[in-house]
Amino acid sequence: MSESYCFIDALLKRPVSRTPVWFMRQAGRYLPEYRQVRQRAGSFMSLCTHPELACEVTLQPLRRFRLDAAILFSDILTIPDAMGLGLAFKEGEGPCFERPVRSAEDIERLPAIDPEADLGYVMDAVRLIRRELNGKIPLIGFAGSPWTLATYMVEGGSSRDFRRVKTLMYQRPELMSRLLDKLSLAVADYLNAQIAAGAQAVMLFDTWGGVLTPVDYRNFSLEAARKVRQRLNTEKDGGRIPTILFTKGGGQWLEAQSRAGFDALGLDWTCDIGQARRRVGGQVALQGNLDPITLFAPPEVIRDRVADVLRGYGPGTGHVFNLGHGILPTVEPAHVEAMVEAVHELSPPLHR
Amino acid sequence: MSESYCFIDALLKRPVSRTPVWFMRQAGRYLPEYRQVRQRAGSFMSLCTHPELACEVTLQPLRRFRLDAAILFSDILTIPDAMGLGLAFKEGEGPCFERPVRSAEDIERLPAIDPEADLGYVMDAVRLIRRELNGKIPLIGFAGSPWTLATYMVEGGSSRDFRRVKTLMYQRPELMSRLLDKLSLAVADYLNAQIAAGAQAVMLFDTWGGVLTPVDYRNFSLEAARKVRQRLNTEKDGGRIPTILFTKGGGQWLEAQSRAGFDALGLDWTCDIGQARRRVGGQVALQGNLDPITLFAPPEVIRDRVADVLRGYGPGTGHVFNLGHGILPTVEPAHVEAMVEAVHELSPPLHR
Repeated sequence: MSESYCFIDALLKRPVSRTPVWFMRQAGRYLPEYRQVRQRAGSFMSLCTHPELACEVTLQPLRRFRLDAAILFSDILTIPDAMGLGLAFKEGEGPCFERPVRSAEDIERLPAIDPEADLGYVMDAVRLIRRELNGKIPLIGFAGSPWTLATYMVEGGSSRDFRRVKTLMYQRPELMSRLLDKLSLAVADYLNAQIAAGAQAVMLFDTWGGVLTPVDYRNFSLEAARKVRQRLNTEKDGGRIPTILFTKGGGQWLEAQSRAGFDALGLDWTCDIGQARRRVGGQVALQGNLDPITLFAPPEVIRDRVADVLRGYGPGTGHVFNLGHGILPTVEPAHVEAMVEAVHELSPPLHR
Repeated sequence: MSESYCFIDALLKRPVSRTPVWFMRQAGRYLPEYRQVRQRAGSFMSLCTHPELACEVTLQPLRRFRLDAAILFSDILTIPDAMGLGLAFKEGEGPCFERPVRSAEDIERLPAIDPEADLGYVMDAVRLIRRELNGKIPLIGFAGSPWTLATYMVEGGSSRDFRRVKTLMYQRPELMSRLLDKLSLAVADYLNAQIAAGAQAVMLFDTWGGVLTPVDYRNFSLEAARKVRQRLNTEKDGGRIPTILFTKGGGQWLEAQSRAGFDALGLDWTCDIGQARRRVGGQVALQGNLDPITLFAPPEVIRDRVADVLRGYGPGTGHVFNLGHGILPTVEPAHVEAMVEAVHELSPPLHR
């Protein structure tokens, strides 16, 4: 790796000249050009499974905004889908599985996955995007965390109260650990295949870690994430592949997260990023954390709030600017531009 | 007040011989006798507006379980309903308002409320329940926090992302403060009327405080709660009326909450109650915080988890046992009994 990317450097806490910026769901429905491709594709999963379409939507936001990273267009549920659970997206209802996992037998029956064979469309997309990016900015690969995948697999879809998956955990903790162990292996193999195909950083999305008690978070969600991290091949061609753990609603547990082996932690908008920096004590970089709803405010308000996040983190490397959660589909692209440009304009003084 | 109640004593950090216990939504759908009365009443609001029905369902859980407090059966949205927003409960959709608050004019137009005149059914229920309780256990009054009421009033109902109410806050912070000021007055007057009618403790439910950034939480939600607290008449007949603030998802901000003037803070299940006790430094009592989903596990697991919460808080007064959020409608009453009995059985050694 002879190139130097400020995104990678910030994650590894090397000096940068400005704060890098990208944002969750940057390839998405708020862009009219995305909606066009999505309509042509016919379904969300068809976008994911056709590498040339996944590549096209991955690149779209980069043509509009000065972003410092691209992120693979895909979905966290590709792994359970490859395991045979039968993923479907019902309009207005979110993802659901035809064959949820409910019993010891269901868990034992889950097959190991071979990422190149079973999820080749993802690796093909990674390779194609890398070729198209041509070294301009790095590409982030990602996966859902084992716990977050388990919530969808046991509930059979989205959930408000996580009754089924938590009841399984409370009632049969050994079964939950068995499920998470299987998923940890699959997630690690999947991310390693993305790295082998060209992903230059990887992020683990623990979207539902925050619904647990502190002790269950540590014993189940974080423990499984740690196992994923341990299996990752993060040295490649003499360079480092940085790793990011994002736990939505996990702001109370940053100290524990910072000891799980990841280079960086993602923060949602309920965290004070300055306090978070002090709490993790320089062990990890931080990524975040503007409230996505800020993007509905006028550009001058967006700029002020970007300034608050940058100032909140303070001077020095180790910060990647991002939203605290995915962008909403009804945001105006011009407001996104205000955010991105504010980071470009306001961050250099913090790195002198 | 010549009686001594362990619930009141624990909130005021006076010595108790065991940890008091009650739980959120203890009068509710998990009880078959509640479902019967609810069906006869025809609608949820009809239960609230008929004092004899509200009284009946308030008393139902006390006949089954050894609880240390009753809580008024009502809804947090009675205030905006009394302000003329037109509250309706659509089956499966939750509450909604026919006339949401969206503009400066809408906010200015909101009338002040006279609790005895406009919400007399609530005060009648309080008086009736007090008479029926006959001094056996104390009665808790409650209200929604100004911020939480504002979310429903601006969104027009429940929300996933709070886009409208947050956009109003980001775009026109002075309007949001004006709305919250009006609501702070109304909520304080409402709680004072409940106290005058006989409520022996009052609780403010900030169900949606946790969706804010730290700075917005302090400036809007907590500031409005502080204003409510300042106006409360908490001395009555020579005794103290304890006050409780519960912010769901507010575990990162306990220090700030502990300085808002309340006697106790409610904790959801994502908080470590032992750490919380150290963080608030003895300034306030704590109420909580078993994960409501624990009640789907077998009784022996429930008992272990109750023990964890009690041991987590540790020895001494200042803890009221509760769930970390409302009980779910599909819980078995026998599992509730296991929880309540575990508190009775396991807590006395902590108070010797």
